[in-house]
Amino acid sequence: MQPQPVLEELDREECLRLIAPSGIGRVAFNDGEGPAVMPVNYVVDGESVIFRTAPAGRLNRNLTTVITGADVRIAFEVDRIDEASHEGWSVLLRGGAHHLADADEATAVALVRPWAGGERDICIRLTPTTITGRRLRRP
Amino acid sequence: MQPQPVLEELDREECLRLIAPSGIGRVAFNDGEGPAVMPVNYVVDGESVIFRTAPAGRLNRNLTTVITGADVRIAFEVDRIDEASHEGWSVLLRGGAHHLADADEATAVALVRPWAGGERDICIRLTPTTITGRRLRRP
Repeated sequence: MQPQPVLEELDREECLRLIAPSGIGRVAFNDGEGPAVMPVNYVVDGESVIFRTAPAGRLNRNLTTVITGADVRIAFEVDRIDEASHEGWSVLLRGGAHHLADADEATAVALVRPWAGGERDICIRLTPTTITGRRLRRP
Repeated sequence: MQPQPVLEELDREECLRLIAPSGIGRVAFNDGEGPAVMPVNYVVDGESVIFRTAPAGRLNRNLTTVITGADVRIAFEVDRIDEASHEGWSVLLRGGAHHLADADEATAVALVRPWAGGERDICIRLTPTTITGRRLRRP
């Protein structure tokens, strides 16, 4: 019988290194009915994360206040986990989200390809106030 | 150039079929600092989802009110997505969470293996009020 995997906390630098290759993450947010979570593809830009979603989607309805300048707290999670061994890591970024608008940010945005056909042109930047991570590894 | 994937809504029955094999999902919840999300492994029991987490973990501190009998709304997301093609599906369950305590539920609990070593003995059942899903597929 294999030993149980051990949980390690990851520091901010290691978390950023792990999520740097971009890919798919899960964004959590609150709408009027409590928490929700959905997968999106993302890129890392410095210490923030940029992702796209549909203008008519749940997330954007929730982010209406962001458009008007207020800050909405969201969470963004990225992981790589082996279902058989239960080894892997997960990183959680938490902080304020806002829409991207200015031209300077267009370069980063271009890297984020939308998933579905049709209009998918709202881009959101999460500027995390906390970045935490955990790794499960067999001793 | 490949056509863009098309988004399809999935009905409740299809969602339950897709998540039935169990595995890893992401649970979203609110603590005092807004939404958070973390990966857990789960099993499906009828139309509800059961997962385990550490007694001292973030999720359980948030679920303190659940222990006292109140209902806490959480979300649970499962997906299978191909990062290269962007094809795949995601299912979102939303509803009230409560701790498992009675013996009748022990059978289902036994199926949920904890990830990390040490004490991981708090099991949570999500009884969803809504089950929604989407599939991205190339036409």
